[in-house]
Amino acid sequence: MNSLHPARRPKCIATVCLSGTLPEKLEAAAAAGFDGVEIFENDLLNFDGSPARVRQMAAELGLAIMLYQPFRDFEAMPGELLARNLARAERKFDVMAELGVEMVLVCSNVQDIAIDDPARSADDLRQMAEAAARRGLRVGYEALAWGRHTRTWRQAWQIVRQADHPALGLILDSFHTLSLGDTLDGIHDVPADKLFFVQFADAPKLSMDVLSWSRHHRNFPGQGDLPVTDFARDLLAAGYTGPLSLEVFNDEFRSAPARLTALDGMRSLRWLESEAGGAELPAAAQFEGVDFLEFAVDAAAGRELETRLRALGFILAGHHRSKAVDLYRQGGVNVILNMEQDSAASEHFQLHGPSVCAIGLKVDDAERAMTRARELCAQEWRGPVGPTERSIPALRAPDGTLLYLIDDREADRSIYESDFVLHPGVQDDAAGWASIDHVAQALPAHRLDSFVLFYRAVFGMHAEAVQEIADPYGLVKSRAMVSPDRNVRIPLNVSESGRTATGRFITAYAGSGVHHIAFRTERLFETIEAIDRGAACLQHVPENYYDDVAARLGLDDALLTRLHDDGLLYDRDPHGDFLHAYTEPFRERFFFELVQRNGYLGYGAANAAVRMAVQAQLSRGATTSADH
Amino acid sequence: MNSLHPARRPKCIATVCLSGTLPEKLEAAAAAGFDGVEIFENDLLNFDGSPARVRQMAAELGLAIMLYQPFRDFEAMPGELLARNLARAERKFDVMAELGVEMVLVCSNVQDIAIDDPARSADDLRQMAEAAARRGLRVGYEALAWGRHTRTWRQAWQIVRQADHPALGLILDSFHTLSLGDTLDGIHDVPADKLFFVQFADAPKLSMDVLSWSRHHRNFPGQGDLPVTDFARDLLAAGYTGPLSLEVFNDEFRSAPARLTALDGMRSLRWLESEAGGAELPAAAQFEGVDFLEFAVDAAAGRELETRLRALGFILAGHHRSKAVDLYRQGGVNVILNMEQDSAASEHFQLHGPSVCAIGLKVDDAERAMTRARELCAQEWRGPVGPTERSIPALRAPDGTLLYLIDDREADRSIYESDFVLHPGVQDDAAGWASIDHVAQALPAHRLDSFVLFYRAVFGMHAEAVQEIADPYGLVKSRAMVSPDRNVRIPLNVSESGRTATGRFITAYAGSGVHHIAFRTERLFETIEAIDRGAACLQHVPENYYDDVAARLGLDDALLTRLHDDGLLYDRDPHGDFLHAYTEPFRERFFFELVQRNGYLGYGAANAAVRMAVQAQLSRGATTSADH
Repeated sequence: MNSLHPARRPKCIATVCLSGTLPEKLEAAAAAGFDGVEIFENDLLNFDGSPARVRQMAAELGLAIMLYQPFRDFEAMPGELLARNLARAERKFDVMAELGVEMVLVCSNVQDIAIDDPARSADDLRQMAEAAARRGLRVGYEALAWGRHTRTWRQAWQIVRQADHPALGLILDSFHTLSLGDTLDGIHDVPADKLFFVQFADAPKLSMDVLSWSRHHRNFPGQGDLPVTDFARDLLAAGYTGPLSLEVFNDEFRSAPARLTALDGMRSLRWLESEAGGAELPAAAQFEGVDFLEFAVDAAAGRELETRLRALGFILAGHHRSKAVDLYRQGGVNVILNMEQDSAASEHFQLHGPSVCAIGLKVDDAERAMTRARELCAQEWRGPVGPTERSIPALRAPDGTLLYLIDDREADRSIYESDFVLHPGVQDDAAGWASIDHVAQALPAHRLDSFVLFYRAVFGMHAEAVQEIADPYGLVKSRAMVSPDRNVRIPLNVSESGRTATGRFITAYAGSGVHHIAFRTERLFETIEAIDRGAACLQHVPENYYDDVAARLGLDDALLTRLHDDGLLYDRDPHGDFLHAYTEPFRERFFFELVQRNGYLGYGAANAAVRMAVQAQLSRGATTSADH
Repeated sequence: MNSLHPARRPKCIATVCLSGTLPEKLEAAAAAGFDGVEIFENDLLNFDGSPARVRQMAAELGLAIMLYQPFRDFEAMPGELLARNLARAERKFDVMAELGVEMVLVCSNVQDIAIDDPARSADDLRQMAEAAARRGLRVGYEALAWGRHTRTWRQAWQIVRQADHPALGLILDSFHTLSLGDTLDGIHDVPADKLFFVQFADAPKLSMDVLSWSRHHRNFPGQGDLPVTDFARDLLAAGYTGPLSLEVFNDEFRSAPARLTALDGMRSLRWLESEAGGAELPAAAQFEGVDFLEFAVDAAAGRELETRLRALGFILAGHHRSKAVDLYRQGGVNVILNMEQDSAASEHFQLHGPSVCAIGLKVDDAERAMTRARELCAQEWRGPVGPTERSIPALRAPDGTLLYLIDDREADRSIYESDFVLHPGVQDDAAGWASIDHVAQALPAHRLDSFVLFYRAVFGMHAEAVQEIADPYGLVKSRAMVSPDRNVRIPLNVSESGRTATGRFITAYAGSGVHHIAFRTERLFETIEAIDRGAACLQHVPENYYDDVAARLGLDDALLTRLHDDGLLYDRDPHGDFLHAYTEPFRERFFFELVQRNGYLGYGAANAAVRMAVQAQLSRGATTSADH
């Protein structure tokens, strides 16, 4: 058994995880801090340079070549094919010698003609190992989940054990084991020095054949749904001391910028190693909720947004001590409008127009959370701070939004008291807003895995199940990231279509960012009375919606009439019910949602289609009038 | 039994097939010539207008509302739920009366609590049918492939038969039957007047759970892999006389322009009805090969392309009688360069730059083929014709490329003799080009189904299996459309990534079009000797490629040396082998391929990755030098 926190293991990534040419892949892996790479054979074949040149490039970048792969369909072939396969192996050993790589991955035979005879497989692999050993090389044998006869690591281990050659060992792959619903139970029976190499991949749970699932939908640990951390924990407990490597086949990774993918890979492995008890990371933050939202605006957008906020019951609560920044407040909700020139906010405004540029998150220990974030490759941010103002640790979310981590433990006053001149004695809780319920982000579809990993690893959030929502112009998928105590909720919305609400946002906004913010009250009917509903809320919920919700959920007439008259939407889950309404979008950038959740856990996905239909209508209206 | 060719059946489409708001969907269905629509309930719920308003819109567009759907989870529920469900049905009957639709679709119950008791299901459905009949309405019962207890049409029929109510009948759906591997065997036992309605959908063969497959990947008959024509034939033979309707859930359809989708739907149903023997269409053309390719160029591009063609052995064979058009020839291959101002070609050039604007296809009977094309909603094209020139029937491919149909049966001379002043006595077969082997088109990924249907329905081509090719910057999928005698081959290439060769083409070309053309010889080594290989062919095939192909296919050294020295690629399938080479891309628009196929049936997909890697390198080189 290892001690719980030994030195960190070398980190490795297979070239097939990354987009581009072989030199581009190597550069990206080195830039993300990997110690080594697996060379995926096709990347070498398509490279117009010798294996020796690849060895030199890797060495110059400080990368070890840790594995050459795959060598396919070798063992237990009929007749004279063994001789041909051994000859083929010798040619690959030539390439490996030139590359300077010591280990080759042999994956279990998938050919129909392969013979179902583990003893024969063992014998063939022993011969290959003997040939490898003569040249100082080693052979790792891996069970493919769809192998012809060898599909589990236990079967592969029986063969390796029987072959009993020092140059032959086992290669494990989390996907091949976990995709079959298998575990590493029994791995302690394998001597640690026979665990030659381990490849990690996660994947979303999909009901499809395992080959297609593997070839197109793998992703990095922390991005999918497989119990990869259990796998890693069992493996380290079994005494594995080799590199932690990533092997992912993913259609989106193939076309994504290699450097971003490599950085996600490094974040994934560091998180995985910590979750598996192989290295220590500071614990994730305990969240106490969303403390404030900050909008980047110019003077005109600021006035327009102020009108919207006042309609929702907000009042001006103070001015920043040193910057052109206003604080609006209502009950437990703080909204900051930042009009400061030459600031991070003004840069954000130039790029995206009026929009959320920062989110303040209340945490138990900001320093600990920042240390964890730094170790998980998050980008820290520091802005200018006035003399009496508080310096608040901040990092960038993957969409560039600033995330401030606010921790009042050692402060004698709140950040609002330290940084703002507050208007005393203002009554600011008439509308009854209790908190910011959720902050939804829209992002391009291919970025979802990356965002999920960020919030899961850096902040310890849970990824909820993907919801599918039918926008009139295409499908929108939504996956909420939620802090363990549920007081920070960040739904992530993606759409393959550019014509949906999400797609239109990404075009208008020129990237990914916050596209809606939900304020929560414990008594929505009273809140609606207290605010300027006509100015605040989206009208035109179709009558047909109420007819259906009444038939579907069997609502009593009094509630139905009340919902209908106030233009509210309604949903119910096993935990409780949910009342909500929306505002009109603010210049195709964002909108507000008004919610009351009585134990309900979701986000009203059942009503999203009707909301999107109304918003699409409004947006078409706006486009049409703009055209005239 | 019906006669073989009765009057055509009414055509219907479910609103869920089409993108947009309900009014947009109705307009698209009417514009494509549909007789009616199924109203999918959510489209009504999200519409801000009464059911009566929908009835009026449909009537104004000449559309009947043929079905209201779905009504879910009705039958065989425990306890007091039947009463609640009957009350729910009454509310939907109110909506149907206002809509003016006579039939509702009840799909089989999927709830875990549903009781496994066909007699109970029959009893419940009889009560609902009785309630419907009181209002002059009818109920159609459909088995969902993933229903809790009722999954096949035979089970649904036993329930309908037992209920024995005139207002209750069966609704069939080709997807629900075919996705289970089931057929309509035994459908003759169902009285024709109990076959209330039929919905058609096709789908690609995917190994995934049937619910996800159904919700996201259905497509129109002729776009997928299911035996939908057998299903339709069995159905018509059983005496079904109702509408042919389409019900497709497809993520890409949800965001595609509704009018294009509706037109594809109409093409699909007309083709299906004909294939099923329910209506007659002229037979598809018998192809005799690709007769010519026409490039739209300006003077400069024309000179550059001429240089390329001369390097490949082509010579100038003639000038057009009335237009600025040149004919280049080599063996059996004709290439036309069109520089005519104010022509279809010059329009094409304005839009796409130098590129293929027309393809001449040799057919047995051009008039018959054109009549078929017209009936299948293809767009006919007529250009200006000089006094002694031949008028050639033409239509537009889905990418706008003109397809000329050439039929020399009644002509006393070829189109080259009638339209061109030929240079007599020119020796033009030195290079040994025998024919145009294939013409590949690149298209946006979401257009593939539409293109497949066009070539399959209009030209009777087969769709080959999808090949996946790893471009360094993303996945490319290729599906070849091939005429029955294999002398016209049109590979269709798509990529979700904008960074692949296919993606870069679509950006540079501003749309879909021809991106490579393969010339075929029976003796490639000799052809290579006869042409200017240095100018014509792509150099830099990596050495690593030859090392691998030798190890993988066990090539003898003489062949290997020859391939290597000539820079040729090699592949093999069970039918024969394949030698090929590529030219450098012409301004990111297209390239030529040089092929010899000795019985081989494919397109060298195994070598596409290495070709794309070299081309990506060239393209990066071009970009990089342009940057300096």
